[in-house]
Amino acid sequence: MISIVLIEPKTQGNIGAIARVMKNFGFSELVLVNPKCSLGDEAYIRAKHAKDVLDNVKILKRWPKLDYLVATSSKTGRDYNIPRNPITPAELGKVLPSKGKIGLVFGREEDGLNNLELAKCDFMVKIPTDKDYKAMNLSHSVAVMLYSLSSLSNDVVPISLAEKKQLFKMLDKALLKMKFVLEDKRETQRLVWKKMIGKSFLSKREAYALMGFFKKLV
Amino acid sequence: MISIVLIEPKTQGNIGAIARVMKNFGFSELVLVNPKCSLGDEAYIRAKHAKDVLDNVKILKRWPKLDYLVATSSKTGRDYNIPRNPITPAELGKVLPSKGKIGLVFGREEDGLNNLELAKCDFMVKIPTDKDYKAMNLSHSVAVMLYSLSSLSNDVVPISLAEKKQLFKMLDKALLKMKFVLEDKRETQRLVWKKMIGKSFLSKREAYALMGFFKKLV
Repeated sequence: MISIVLIEPKTQGNIGAIARVMKNFGFSELVLVNPKCSLGDEAYIRAKHAKDVLDNVKILKRWPKLDYLVATSSKTGRDYNIPRNPITPAELGKVLPSKGKIGLVFGREEDGLNNLELAKCDFMVKIPTDKDYKAMNLSHSVAVMLYSLSSLSNDVVPISLAEKKQLFKMLDKALLKMKFVLEDKRETQRLVWKKMIGKSFLSKREAYALMGFFKKLV
Repeated sequence: MISIVLIEPKTQGNIGAIARVMKNFGFSELVLVNPKCSLGDEAYIRAKHAKDVLDNVKILKRWPKLDYLVATSSKTGRDYNIPRNPITPAELGKVLPSKGKIGLVFGREEDGLNNLELAKCDFMVKIPTDKDYKAMNLSHSVAVMLYSLSSLSNDVVPISLAEKKQLFKMLDKALLKMKFVLEDKRETQRLVWKKMIGKSFLSKREAYALMGFFKKLV
């Protein structure tokens, strides 16, 4: 279970926006530690259809007791500042266990987490940002982290290996019907098609349409 | 060159927040097509240190002429609604050329891009979201897309293969000095350490500290 833990957030709008993006990515546990604002209309307006996330928010005076606390910060230290030595969200996604109580900890809007708070966490994650402007909006950081950790996928029905083979078979048939001055142009065509089909991540529907096209050529 | 193209945005705050996250990820070309608001204080406040992105914004009455237009939408069609058959941001990242003029097109805050607008684009990308709440905040969509396309990385100095080998060599030496009742426990230790070192994505500094630790054991 992953909780989003905000340390002393001060902007209602941010909290609402965070609730919304949590629901977008299928997360529901929001914890506020010593919030510096109340949760009023502005939070609910920004939350849109994620009012349930706000209704179930946990407001605490102390940090929650969880199995793991993962800090997020845009402030990295030099290599020898070990607590501020981050991994990336993609790396976090690879190692994060699917069980246990894990808190993703986000600091204040203005100045993030201080060194003492960072030391309370097991380790730190940093979203790779441009060196000229590292500080992200709080709700944007949450959005990117949750996107990166979410195992959701598009509901597009992908083309299977068998269908891909069928598609290439029909392409070959079509190419065989065509006249090429040089035989190796046919192979070039085949390679180009293979790459194009690969790059376009065809859905089943698109693949069948393409089969229909090849069928017309033989 | 990747431009962020907003179709008829109506909220200054969103435009400012988008400018900020563009700068966070190293993007600078912002295009507004028929904006329904002006760019005033609210936009500049939300843009924070990305005022230059707003200063350089292009405001157009018609869609820009670019080599590729990539639509983003949370509304997918069924499999046979071909224009609404999306790929994921990760897939886009794999195929996006590094040259050429590419526009990432984002629709209106309330109802996105309509079918005619979608048809103007070459293809569509959808951020995978929970089926119960697909509609993301506009600036969050931009944040996630740009994160996904950004080739930025953490400035952590990673451990090299040679250093990893050195680390394991020192670990082995340390393990050899230890007494194990059963010899295969030593191998288990080795495997556990290998996995732990892998999972923790050590930086150079951390690896050298660990070497120092092993050195003390021999």
